[in-house]
Amino acid sequence: MTAPMHRHRPGTPDTQQGMRRRNLSRVLHTVAADGPVSRASVAQRIGLTRAAVSTLVDELIRAGLLEELGRQRPGGVGRPGSALAVSERGPAGFGAEVGVDHLAVCAMDLRGEVRARAERRVGNRGRAPRVVLRELADLVKRVTVEAETLGLAPVGLAVAVPGRVVRDTGTVASAPNLGWQDTDVAALLPVDVPLSVDNEANFGALAELWRAAECPADFLHVSAEIGIGAALVVEGGLLRGTRGFAGELGHVPVRPEGPECPCGGRGCLEQYAGEEAVLRASGIGPGPDRVTLLAERAEAGDRDTRRALRGAGTALGIALTGAVHLLDPRAVVLGGALSRLAPWLLPPLERELTRRTARPADGVVVSRIGPDGPLLGAAQSVVRAVLDDPMSVAHDTAAP
Amino acid sequence: MTAPMHRHRPGTPDTQQGMRRRNLSRVLHTVAADGPVSRASVAQRIGLTRAAVSTLVDELIRAGLLEELGRQRPGGVGRPGSALAVSERGPAGFGAEVGVDHLAVCAMDLRGEVRARAERRVGNRGRAPRVVLRELADLVKRVTVEAETLGLAPVGLAVAVPGRVVRDTGTVASAPNLGWQDTDVAALLPVDVPLSVDNEANFGALAELWRAAECPADFLHVSAEIGIGAALVVEGGLLRGTRGFAGELGHVPVRPEGPECPCGGRGCLEQYAGEEAVLRASGIGPGPDRVTLLAERAEAGDRDTRRALRGAGTALGIALTGAVHLLDPRAVVLGGALSRLAPWLLPPLERELTRRTARPADGVVVSRIGPDGPLLGAAQSVVRAVLDDPMSVAHDTAAP
Repeated sequence: MTAPMHRHRPGTPDTQQGMRRRNLSRVLHTVAADGPVSRASVAQRIGLTRAAVSTLVDELIRAGLLEELGRQRPGGVGRPGSALAVSERGPAGFGAEVGVDHLAVCAMDLRGEVRARAERRVGNRGRAPRVVLRELADLVKRVTVEAETLGLAPVGLAVAVPGRVVRDTGTVASAPNLGWQDTDVAALLPVDVPLSVDNEANFGALAELWRAAECPADFLHVSAEIGIGAALVVEGGLLRGTRGFAGELGHVPVRPEGPECPCGGRGCLEQYAGEEAVLRASGIGPGPDRVTLLAERAEAGDRDTRRALRGAGTALGIALTGAVHLLDPRAVVLGGALSRLAPWLLPPLERELTRRTARPADGVVVSRIGPDGPLLGAAQSVVRAVLDDPMSVAHDTAAP
Repeated sequence: MTAPMHRHRPGTPDTQQGMRRRNLSRVLHTVAADGPVSRASVAQRIGLTRAAVSTLVDELIRAGLLEELGRQRPGGVGRPGSALAVSERGPAGFGAEVGVDHLAVCAMDLRGEVRARAERRVGNRGRAPRVVLRELADLVKRVTVEAETLGLAPVGLAVAVPGRVVRDTGTVASAPNLGWQDTDVAALLPVDVPLSVDNEANFGALAELWRAAECPADFLHVSAEIGIGAALVVEGGLLRGTRGFAGELGHVPVRPEGPECPCGGRGCLEQYAGEEAVLRASGIGPGPDRVTLLAERAEAGDRDTRRALRGAGTALGIALTGAVHLLDPRAVVLGGALSRLAPWLLPPLERELTRRTARPADGVVVSRIGPDGPLLGAAQSVVRAVLDDPMSVAHDTAAP
């Protein structure tokens, strides 16, 4: 469901039916990206005839996915000037996030706007997955009720988790900061809509790709909450890896004989730039919202905090040197908690990249989406699946 | 020209014409992969009707790209049982390799067989690119003459170089072991066929993908001659990076404060596992074919050589730990000179991957193609371009 790459596999038969489905998708994507627009304008943008586009548009209107905003040229013959927009009623993409210290759910319409939302602060570390997911299902129900009053119905739910998710399954292989292992989220989450599960860094990167203005189609998105993850976007799609485990930046060796890491390795990036490591080096003990405290201390010029962040930035720069040499991304985007600490992390990070001649083409930038990225990316992955194959939901929403 | 990913970009109009071209390609690919085969069998494999396939096949026969091997069921009505094969005459893909100590050119028919070949041992380090490329053009001429006697004509030439090639251009940004910088190969190579240029590791990976039995569609190919490069194959296509510079495994930091590297960094993999570093640590001075000497000494149990290779394997394991965590490839394939040294490199390399929990799904394997990979991959990239879009060469070869 997430990040289809529009790839034509050799061997897939190319039929009239397949062509029609792809063209319906192109029309819907164009209106979603540029709407409100006229039929003529859609035809021009996607390179089909006006007549072909009209047939496709009529089908999408019947399915409840497009709507006409009324004539823009009063008195015109037929409806040549009526503007098309993606429907704000009907199918909605639901996104959810299981964080180490919170749960969140939102409903997004086909235009990409969040229309309903619920959140709970709760410490999930070490709790039984079944209990956590039952609470998440309660939030899903609340958001569903709210969405229904707006004429929206969930067509799918995508769940972001801080862990490794086995590709094309609903199973979390491991989420060390939650204490989950081989957890079948799809089986344990009592909801009755199609479900997908993915790593929070992946959904965060997709949110950046789909929602941030002028986001390049190729970038490495670095995400940190408790752990450090990354996601690589290539030509507008995620590089997931064979098992779905790509992007484990937190376990790239920075100093191969450095401190032991719970992963079994030594000197992994997380041992220098993970939240726990930075807090410990700053002398900050247990308590709520410690990243805010960290930022405040750094702002105030606290020496230990500044030194800890310098060390974290240097380690990030060394690990990213390897990543940039291997992947040659257009940009590196710092997201999640890292974006709040960017003023102190960026200078040492950039220094390492520069002296090791590993600066990406467009440099290192800070996320424009912020900590909501994973939740928004999850919901939007469901919305994109509808735009990619409009007829998949047509029978749910079309009037007979 | 190299490694088209069969990707349908949103916004590309989907037309009858485009569909026909893709289906012609599917038929030709199927016969190339599985031929000789009957029309019925092609139809079954690609999921089109027998009638549709017959029309496509007739067009490919008229274009000289397919041929009929004669009826297999004598007395049948029409030609239902005649077996189809890709033509062994007509278009040929030319591949060339500029090595640090050799030049090579080959001609490959559409069946993927090398039909003509020329090679020269010559030290290219520090020579003017114009001189090197003029010599290469002479080899191309020799091979062209030989190919023509076999009824083959070059439709394109792909050149493998040991350096960074700017994506979608014929320009080598830098090839340190040749001493090339910003070298416009396309402008300096006096040949009159369409030209493409790419990194030797990329072509080596493609050769592995296209020619090795049971090669997975996702793997990291590590290649070493003088430098160390890598290429990542994802879903059957190369990950090139934004500028075309992806795969620079040789400059992944292994020990961030290690020895200085000419790239500007410190402790890069090449400082531990590059040919120069290993030869120096083994106490082997200047001379011809030093990798053979290295293998002989290791075989004989020479302590310095064994220790040097152990160090190289360990460094490779550390750098690959980062690469596997970032990319999650199905396998790591050791190619080029590394494949000859695999007996001594593999054990320390695997030990690092295992203790750092970075073993790829299918482990580390040794290339089945060997040092010819880049040359074969280059030629086959031209052949694949014909299979991907048969009509691109139809006007060159079709009888009127």
